[in-house]
Amino acid sequence: MLRRTAFGMLRRTAFGMLRRTAFGMLRRTAVRLYFPFAVRLLNKQINGKMKSKVTNLFQIQYPIIQGGMIWCSGWKLAAAVSNAGGLGLIGAGSMHPDVFQEHVRKMKAATQKPWGVNLPLLYPQMDEMVEIVLREKVKIVFTSAGNPKKYTAILKENGAVVVHVVANTKFAMKSQEAGVDAIVAEGFEAGGHNGSEETTTMALIPMVKKVVNIPVIAAGGIATGRQMLAAFALGAEGVQVGSRFAASEESSAHPVFKQKIVEAGDGDTKLTLKRIVPVRLIRNKFFQEVEEMENRGASLDEIKAHLGRGRAKLGMFEGDADEGELEIGQVSAIIESIKPTSVILKEMMEEFEEARKEISTGF
Amino acid sequence: MLRRTAFGMLRRTAFGMLRRTAFGMLRRTAVRLYFPFAVRLLNKQINGKMKSKVTNLFQIQYPIIQGGMIWCSGWKLAAAVSNAGGLGLIGAGSMHPDVFQEHVRKMKAATQKPWGVNLPLLYPQMDEMVEIVLREKVKIVFTSAGNPKKYTAILKENGAVVVHVVANTKFAMKSQEAGVDAIVAEGFEAGGHNGSEETTTMALIPMVKKVVNIPVIAAGGIATGRQMLAAFALGAEGVQVGSRFAASEESSAHPVFKQKIVEAGDGDTKLTLKRIVPVRLIRNKFFQEVEEMENRGASLDEIKAHLGRGRAKLGMFEGDADEGELEIGQVSAIIESIKPTSVILKEMMEEFEEARKEISTGF
Repeated sequence: MLRRTAFGMLRRTAFGMLRRTAFGMLRRTAVRLYFPFAVRLLNKQINGKMKSKVTNLFQIQYPIIQGGMIWCSGWKLAAAVSNAGGLGLIGAGSMHPDVFQEHVRKMKAATQKPWGVNLPLLYPQMDEMVEIVLREKVKIVFTSAGNPKKYTAILKENGAVVVHVVANTKFAMKSQEAGVDAIVAEGFEAGGHNGSEETTTMALIPMVKKVVNIPVIAAGGIATGRQMLAAFALGAEGVQVGSRFAASEESSAHPVFKQKIVEAGDGDTKLTLKRIVPVRLIRNKFFQEVEEMENRGASLDEIKAHLGRGRAKLGMFEGDADEGELEIGQVSAIIESIKPTSVILKEMMEEFEEARKEISTGF
Repeated sequence: MLRRTAFGMLRRTAFGMLRRTAFGMLRRTAVRLYFPFAVRLLNKQINGKMKSKVTNLFQIQYPIIQGGMIWCSGWKLAAAVSNAGGLGLIGAGSMHPDVFQEHVRKMKAATQKPWGVNLPLLYPQMDEMVEIVLREKVKIVFTSAGNPKKYTAILKENGAVVVHVVANTKFAMKSQEAGVDAIVAEGFEAGGHNGSEETTTMALIPMVKKVVNIPVIAAGGIATGRQMLAAFALGAEGVQVGSRFAASEESSAHPVFKQKIVEAGDGDTKLTLKRIVPVRLIRNKFFQEVEEMENRGASLDEIKAHLGRGRAKLGMFEGDADEGELEIGQVSAIIESIKPTSVILKEMMEEFEEARKEISTGF
């Protein structure tokens, strides 16, 4: 009885010890073993919101910026992108100052999320545009096609985040010196106006990363999550997407132009007008005429006379696919349908995360 | 005494049980917990050898192919690349058949590793070249600049792995139909001859991936591990590198040409001769003359007469940097020194793995 009692007592004690010790050890071991997993898991969750210097800078959910595009990106597209977690930009390049003012006001009513404007600095009434930006206290300003030194200081003094768009290393350095918060480095494959160096995104991003230490946003050739991941692999911390948003439901592009983007295949866009301002266009009738003039060595005056005025509005906003200028990027060849902005952002982020997983776990 | 004995006995038994049970449980738990880590670790080790469809196809260590380049890639460079774990290609484009024959024989003596040749199909004595390839039982043949239907069948019947180089989706599909084992999709930023579509690597790889199911090797704009990772993100399973190997110690390029590659900056190369055969060149005196002729709409005959013969040899092999044709890619702007092939491969793989880790663990 004594033995049984002692035995029972000890057994209970021993098992209690065993349980406690074993569980303690297991718990500690498990915590130690699981810690790297937990960190990884936590990262993944943070990454659902995709933290990067660019998301921090703009306080946005996804590091995807909708490029400011003439005749495509008014308040409606920009608000849709911002409301879906990206950064929407009102493209001021095709707006009279009063129209621009109206878009800014409508934008304020349409979203509580961060948003910005794109100002092409070659625009004739730029002082007036900057005044509107300051008066309306626009918080994010992308400038392009001009000298970043001209307006960066005044915009920053008034509390704006300033980003300049460049196509080469020289202007990347100039932008950093001018005090911008980030740059967009845009490759040759991009639609619309382009650099004379013709440097592609694949070559440009590493070149630019070598000469600046502010965040770099890649543009040109980016319409999918895989292309976005490629840009990040090159060292970018955000992407600017034009063509795919030009073909979105909320874009103000004419339906005929949107359809042309969807139909475009490999080789259907080309950089032209290189002696005036290089611009990437769909190869329509108007493009062929310009090419023919360039090939036979026509004078600049003759070419300018043929261009006349309003060709971009005619093509992109009014839908004249023959006589109008249709600015779009090479990625138009992989854009297959017109979708809502929110779906585009969702698809891009999903493909990005999927491709990232594939890349991480080996080949 | 009895209590002490029983106690002692039981204590020992209990601790034995505790130890065994706890250890058993811990061991099982540890195995269970560590298994995903082990798999991950194993993957990493395999990745040290970088398994991909392309490494399997050629039985090589790294998915890096040295592009066949005129006047740069004889047996010496190709053997160095193969011996260092990549795939070296003898560039037959600048060789007379007897010289080519000699390079093939020297190659066989210089390496036991897999290697291949690049045959530009527009070459006038191509039948003779293919005969040499068949007679010498060359196991890997890259064809370019021509119709993949012409030689693929006979090469494959003789046991060769055949890869065709394309610059657009149309020829990607044609190549797959012709029965090639893989394709190289080469973007606009690449040096030397190029497609008239001017599609960049960033845009081209996703387009090509949509239309073929054979492995895709990316070319154009790839000189670093980050650019290689970007190509993989786009869906490529191997990369073809030209410019960086042209500037390697083992390249047969003239030292003056190698120095020009190292000195080249952003915008210092350009695609020209678009009405004859588009080719990317360093913007030297010869290039400027050609550009001037094109801009004033000179006739094709006039341009061809100015080109004459042997301009590429003069520039790339004989080192006349003014009068010669210097074919190189945009990435020359990020090539900073002339290094041994083995160092180039090692640096690329290290940067690739580093960038991959960075991408995997979030931003």
